[in-house]
Amino acid sequence: MKRPTMQDIARRAGVTKGAVSFALNGRPGVSEPTRRRILAIAEELGWQPNSAAVALSDGRANAFGLVVDRPARTLGLEPYFMQLISGIQAELSATGTPLLFTVADDQLAEIATYRSWWGRRRVDGVFLVDLRVDDARVPVLEQLGMPTVAIGMPQAAGSLPAVWTDDAAAARTALSHLVGLGHRRIARVAGPEQLLHTRIRTEAFAACAWELGVEYRTVASDYSGEQGAAATRELLLGPRRPTALVYDNDVMAVSGLSAAQGLGLRVPADVSMLAWDDSALCELVHPSLTALSRDIAEHGAHAARVLRQAAGGADCGDLRDPDPVLTLRGSTAAPAGEDQD
Amino acid sequence: MKRPTMQDIARRAGVTKGAVSFALNGRPGVSEPTRRRILAIAEELGWQPNSAAVALSDGRANAFGLVVDRPARTLGLEPYFMQLISGIQAELSATGTPLLFTVADDQLAEIATYRSWWGRRRVDGVFLVDLRVDDARVPVLEQLGMPTVAIGMPQAAGSLPAVWTDDAAAARTALSHLVGLGHRRIARVAGPEQLLHTRIRTEAFAACAWELGVEYRTVASDYSGEQGAAATRELLLGPRRPTALVYDNDVMAVSGLSAAQGLGLRVPADVSMLAWDDSALCELVHPSLTALSRDIAEHGAHAARVLRQAAGGADCGDLRDPDPVLTLRGSTAAPAGEDQD
Repeated sequence: MKRPTMQDIARRAGVTKGAVSFALNGRPGVSEPTRRRILAIAEELGWQPNSAAVALSDGRANAFGLVVDRPARTLGLEPYFMQLISGIQAELSATGTPLLFTVADDQLAEIATYRSWWGRRRVDGVFLVDLRVDDARVPVLEQLGMPTVAIGMPQAAGSLPAVWTDDAAAARTALSHLVGLGHRRIARVAGPEQLLHTRIRTEAFAACAWELGVEYRTVASDYSGEQGAAATRELLLGPRRPTALVYDNDVMAVSGLSAAQGLGLRVPADVSMLAWDDSALCELVHPSLTALSRDIAEHGAHAARVLRQAAGGADCGDLRDPDPVLTLRGSTAAPAGEDQD
Repeated sequence: MKRPTMQDIARRAGVTKGAVSFALNGRPGVSEPTRRRILAIAEELGWQPNSAAVALSDGRANAFGLVVDRPARTLGLEPYFMQLISGIQAELSATGTPLLFTVADDQLAEIATYRSWWGRRRVDGVFLVDLRVDDARVPVLEQLGMPTVAIGMPQAAGSLPAVWTDDAAAARTALSHLVGLGHRRIARVAGPEQLLHTRIRTEAFAACAWELGVEYRTVASDYSGEQGAAATRELLLGPRRPTALVYDNDVMAVSGLSAAQGLGLRVPADVSMLAWDDSALCELVHPSLTALSRDIAEHGAHAARVLRQAAGGADCGDLRDPDPVLTLRGSTAAPAGEDQD
């Protein structure tokens, strides 16, 4: 079975292909009864306009794009992207606009994809994720003039509209919770240093720890379970063991919990743990993990709404989503007596 | 900055737009030196062919599609889909073919998406996942005549080519391992019953348990961590506690492990656990989980290769990938003495 064409409709209706084109495109040239008959036959045959013809005539691709250049192994494990994509889809599906999604090996490949998609008019705009300090993609996208929404802090987005949450505020929430429980020696297993939000978190933690008068330390990592576990073991076996650990993603928090348990330590009796970016993963483990929660799907939907406006030619500003809130679960508690000052 | 057009190239080269079109499309009508000059300017300006024009002229969309109708919450958690998509992308990127990816609310919405994508020529074919018993999508896709590769057992794929692994063989591998360790009372927390491979696994486990003379029981679930934990608690607190548990996905295995530990049971000393479909998730927890492993990314790449052939008009047969193998980790061991017969 082939896809029905205007010719098929014309044959069935006993009219010319030109008359069918007039009727389907709402242009004059056919009588009202004929138009109705043609539309009924088109409906019956399941005819739909050729997206390429529509794209050529209105100059739009009617699709948006998302490129991610994290390694597939890390990507697959983090619920974040699937939640973000679900939210984007939920918003785009209202207008039947599909999402072109691809995984790139590195930033160069990602930039090449943008040039190709925009040059070939495959997309009307893109979502930019994982913003870096001095992000090389931003000037390229600005120069291309491709409508883009940055999902991340405005500081790294140049002139591109940003949809973001305040990581500095969230860092203060996390640290205040732990200090409020009585912790005075706290370490954080951070995400990749080249990401802007990692740097913003690091600065906010350091400033807040200074204000609150507690010891604080950041250990660099790469979001992977392996490095999360390794950093945890290093901190827990080293001198001046921290009484609480904060992790920059859920995957590292889960592996850190396992690493601590593997060393024979109890969570939270011996060490408290707190995950940044709550996900169902945090509820899978025992004890379940106290985490900073935000609505990632809603965040994606907001980004899709802004991108649609930007692609429509609107001058879009930044959109700030609500600060993450703390979801209290079983992994944080007051430190044991001997660890307190 | 706007996208460079043929008109821009013509202006820069001091030739007509027609001459540019001849040169770029490799048709006669311009001299060889002029052609070379036009191509050099097109390269310099970063000109690329309009994908809609290419699609109209060659009748192909130059894109493939994937629709998934699992709930976003479950989807985000399972590394499976991201690994599958990475593998598909790796293969498609060789020809610069993008993947249209969307999440549908249910099977009806999924079918509507296929009709729309095919009718509008947005894709040249699709990957069909999560095959069900008497799958309603298969006859629709057959009738549409849309090139499709089913990622799953051929029994449910009708006339569509299937790329698959033998779940019955894997079930025997898992059960034989546990029986070899001395387990005689084994339960399995299964995936959704409407999925064909769940049914095939259930039958294979039952048959193999009968042959080996051990007690075996299947408990239905939905792949979510919540239900995985609930089923685990039910089995471990019920009469005739099993000494080993098999889980149909990694997410349920991880939550089952937590549930057992929450009951004060030791894994593997009190109960062994085995996960189906290994992923990095299985290595995050303590103890790490013994699992059935296969190369999911490679599986996706194979599916992409078959789909490209099918879309090119080839008559494709089924492709069977290697049987999953057991990766031994810390969650399986011989049962404690009092549990043995």
